[in-house]
Amino acid sequence: MTKALIILSGGLDSTVLAHQINAANDCQLAALSFDYGQKHTRELACASAQASQLKIEHTIVALPFINELFSSALLSNSDAEIPHGHYQDESMKQTVVPNRNMIMLSIAAGVALSQDRSELYYGAHSGDHAIYPDCRADFVAAMQQALGLCDWQKIALQVPFLHLDKPEIVRRGVALGVDFRQTWTCYTGGDQPCGKCGSCVERSQAFAANGLDDPLLD
Amino acid sequence: MTKALIILSGGLDSTVLAHQINAANDCQLAALSFDYGQKHTRELACASAQASQLKIEHTIVALPFINELFSSALLSNSDAEIPHGHYQDESMKQTVVPNRNMIMLSIAAGVALSQDRSELYYGAHSGDHAIYPDCRADFVAAMQQALGLCDWQKIALQVPFLHLDKPEIVRRGVALGVDFRQTWTCYTGGDQPCGKCGSCVERSQAFAANGLDDPLLD
Repeated sequence: MTKALIILSGGLDSTVLAHQINAANDCQLAALSFDYGQKHTRELACASAQASQLKIEHTIVALPFINELFSSALLSNSDAEIPHGHYQDESMKQTVVPNRNMIMLSIAAGVALSQDRSELYYGAHSGDHAIYPDCRADFVAAMQQALGLCDWQKIALQVPFLHLDKPEIVRRGVALGVDFRQTWTCYTGGDQPCGKCGSCVERSQAFAANGLDDPLLD
Repeated sequence: MTKALIILSGGLDSTVLAHQINAANDCQLAALSFDYGQKHTRELACASAQASQLKIEHTIVALPFINELFSSALLSNSDAEIPHGHYQDESMKQTVVPNRNMIMLSIAAGVALSQDRSELYYGAHSGDHAIYPDCRADFVAAMQQALGLCDWQKIALQVPFLHLDKPEIVRRGVALGVDFRQTWTCYTGGDQPCGKCGSCVERSQAFAANGLDDPLLD
């Protein structure tokens, strides 16, 4: 059976993707998360809970250098407030962590190679495209090329949600019985979702499009 | 003036490259090194010494997860001996750290973006090609593509030694007045170069091709 690794943030998208892969039952899956100094470390507890429910191996990699050397409103080193409003607003660009996704993908590929895993799953989806260059199809294609060349063993980068939007991902998650109470999306560091940041707004709209309320906001 | 960042290992190739860039005096250069659990941490002291001589900012990023999660004879977590013999021998493949170079490049790009640096220098050269897929031209081209797409600001990956061999790099280093006593190449963890590992053998041959002895072996 193919061995695969998923980058599991504990957010909604990668969680639904992990459930979808697990349900297909055609590969042996493990999960990798990153503690990069994000304000919303609560997502890591969600990632652990989901991995535990899926009965898959889960590793959290600490990347303390990001908080020391990088600038972003998303990081706990920053006093900048997470912007409110719609996800596609220009202000959300403040939440970009420079080259974060390539860093995660490259480390995940190294772990996959070390564990003899030939597939790497990444939960980027179409709603990310406006704000995050490193969630777009042309970036993904370049990384697929690089990951096919970085070692004698090829790593296949799989991005099945690349052209799906968040309402469709919620729809799939509902069908798969995902416990959305154990997913975390809000970018602020609170114990409850703020309901106001772009990330919260996008999540709410995705539930609403399915005729549902976000269970975290009940 | 363009701001650039170089991945400076403290080995011979990246050191000569740093001196070459500095001598050209057409960009403001800083250096980044990685402590990834290599047995030969001595190279990091050399990197610091070279950066200090060049009067450029130097940062060492610690990547403890590599020693925890990755397998390679190059790592201090491994009891495997560094193989002796010629650099191009099959046995040298044991010294590959899975996806190490993509990890370094992606982190360096994140640092460059955070410091508003638009160029990233990488000292891969043609002698690495037989052993290390992630030093080859097709891998470099894929990474150039990905680094041009990962952010709104493009990062230009510069690999000026890609098609040069080590004797030519030594020749350039001599012309630039590089202090080769402050460069480290041996893959074993000793205080003196072993003179027997593939890396030492390749270095010795590069000096010999220039009619010189390696000053570290005097």
